[in-house]
Amino acid sequence: MGIVIPLEEKSSERVIDRLTALVASDMGAVNQTILSRTGADVGMITEVANHLISSGGKRLRPILTLATAGLCGYAGDGHIKLAASVEFMHTATLLHDDVVDESDMRRGKLAARVLWGNEASVLVGDFLLGQAFKMMVEVGSLQCLDVLSSAAAVIAEGEVMQLSAAKDTATTEDAYLAVIRAKTAALFAAACEVGPILAQRPKAEIEACRGFGANLGIAFQLVDDALDYGGSSAKLGKNVGDDFREGKITLPVVLSFRRGTMIEREFWRRTLEQGEVADGDLETALATMKKHRALEDTIDRARHYGAMARDSLELFPASAWKHALLDAVEFAVSRAH
Amino acid sequence: MGIVIPLEEKSSERVIDRLTALVASDMGAVNQTILSRTGADVGMITEVANHLISSGGKRLRPILTLATAGLCGYAGDGHIKLAASVEFMHTATLLHDDVVDESDMRRGKLAARVLWGNEASVLVGDFLLGQAFKMMVEVGSLQCLDVLSSAAAVIAEGEVMQLSAAKDTATTEDAYLAVIRAKTAALFAAACEVGPILAQRPKAEIEACRGFGANLGIAFQLVDDALDYGGSSAKLGKNVGDDFREGKITLPVVLSFRRGTMIEREFWRRTLEQGEVADGDLETALATMKKHRALEDTIDRARHYGAMARDSLELFPASAWKHALLDAVEFAVSRAH
Repeated sequence: MGIVIPLEEKSSERVIDRLTALVASDMGAVNQTILSRTGADVGMITEVANHLISSGGKRLRPILTLATAGLCGYAGDGHIKLAASVEFMHTATLLHDDVVDESDMRRGKLAARVLWGNEASVLVGDFLLGQAFKMMVEVGSLQCLDVLSSAAAVIAEGEVMQLSAAKDTATTEDAYLAVIRAKTAALFAAACEVGPILAQRPKAEIEACRGFGANLGIAFQLVDDALDYGGSSAKLGKNVGDDFREGKITLPVVLSFRRGTMIEREFWRRTLEQGEVADGDLETALATMKKHRALEDTIDRARHYGAMARDSLELFPASAWKHALLDAVEFAVSRAH
Repeated sequence: MGIVIPLEEKSSERVIDRLTALVASDMGAVNQTILSRTGADVGMITEVANHLISSGGKRLRPILTLATAGLCGYAGDGHIKLAASVEFMHTATLLHDDVVDESDMRRGKLAARVLWGNEASVLVGDFLLGQAFKMMVEVGSLQCLDVLSSAAAVIAEGEVMQLSAAKDTATTEDAYLAVIRAKTAALFAAACEVGPILAQRPKAEIEACRGFGANLGIAFQLVDDALDYGGSSAKLGKNVGDDFREGKITLPVVLSFRRGTMIEREFWRRTLEQGEVADGDLETALATMKKHRALEDTIDRARHYGAMARDSLELFPASAWKHALLDAVEFAVSRAH
């Protein structure tokens, strides 16, 4: 996944202040749980897990679990462990992704695989997955277990899908969407679905929350894709071009390729499929995307899914929780500017 | 893990004929389940999973799940999916292990990571784990979910433990036992525990089956360790010396190192810790093990755990199931001769 451009982070983060304030006390409990579950007898697990977990991810996924539980008036404490499970599943995915993508950096720090090796990244990922399932089992809701274990299977399937589709510049927008539905949106959806399940809300509300999460997840990923090329400003900056250098096919590329001339398509094939990247190629990629409005349209697509996410919540009456969750949509989309 | 020496496989496999005959019809259902759950929409998953699953492992773990369910008079069909889950968990571990160990061969075939790459091995492993949890959830027993998800966490912890202890010739026997308890025995134990849980047997029987599995697992792993150096005959043959070449510290090494002279300890440090292996070193290792009776004593240790496994089942009255399960102990230990 792309990295939020630091320059823009401050203002866009303010958008979710209301949300983070609402979940602050629950989030404290989640953080406690996370710390206690990585304090294994094996020192290396604590080190590797904390390296990533404490590296300042926004913890958007567990926040969503807490907030949808709040939205649905859940009064128990099962959502704490489920939120921690969701974060562990996400962290496990990042650890395995770094190995698969051979990435050297993650969230502005050296990737765990660089510091401790691929072996540790694979195995600590497995450990966190195991801990996630243990916590889910402790919560004891078979329906939540179903939702989260299905998400785990779908995520892995999505990653393999992406592997198969990797470096194919002819990937269609639909095929690309199928990948991010699986590898990103599935966990967002599950994170939002377990709260209403715990609160024993009717099916319509459970599905509303799930739809909210799924669409928010797609919007979030598409904006990430655009940010990796500098967002709508498409300016060169820190961390811009990671996806390009790794030969990742994301929506900005899919759109640019389809809208491009024969010569431009040849350019994408050379740089992304064959991995022959020369000086100045990133600038050419950005100029080509600008010409075809690929980044603006990627963000427009994100806005579409953001709108669907907002509508998903419509059946809930106005509340502080609802407004804060709608802020999360705003946050996901507005990061791109 | 070591590989059973082909020459001796035939006779030792006959030992479990009674067991495989008893579970044959259930095992057919397990195989059907396994096939249907790897038939994902993503072709690569089917290919990678089937490469390993159909490569003729003995499926000892799912057999144990079926047989302990039979022993406890279970009449439902939940044990089929749990047996398939156990095999998926095991297969996922093998896929990840090959990446971690950088192995090129597995069960006499090229390792999946060689054929499809590390990426696919990591991700298909994740997919199988996800499917395993989905199947467990479908069976719907929270207690079984607890047992199996705890095992998953312990296995991953054991793998990291082994990583930390890797190449340390000063590893104690206790430390080594802790590793194999986690990475091998935990899944054997869980595989044997879920049958009596499904059958709603009293706690004493559940614990008896668990103890049977845990001790059988340790015996099985120790014999594997000995077989990797040719078993008690310590003859050079096909697949002998894999652990040595990979610098793995197993019980035969632990014993030889502790019982060895200064010069011998230097030899183990050079070959295993520093990985400087020259022609003739494997022969030297075998001779040193022979001198210190390291392989015989490893097998003796295995026999001890085999005896504990047998005793664990003592509280069950005589039955075809019980006899067949006792055969499994005989099988695990007798492979070494």
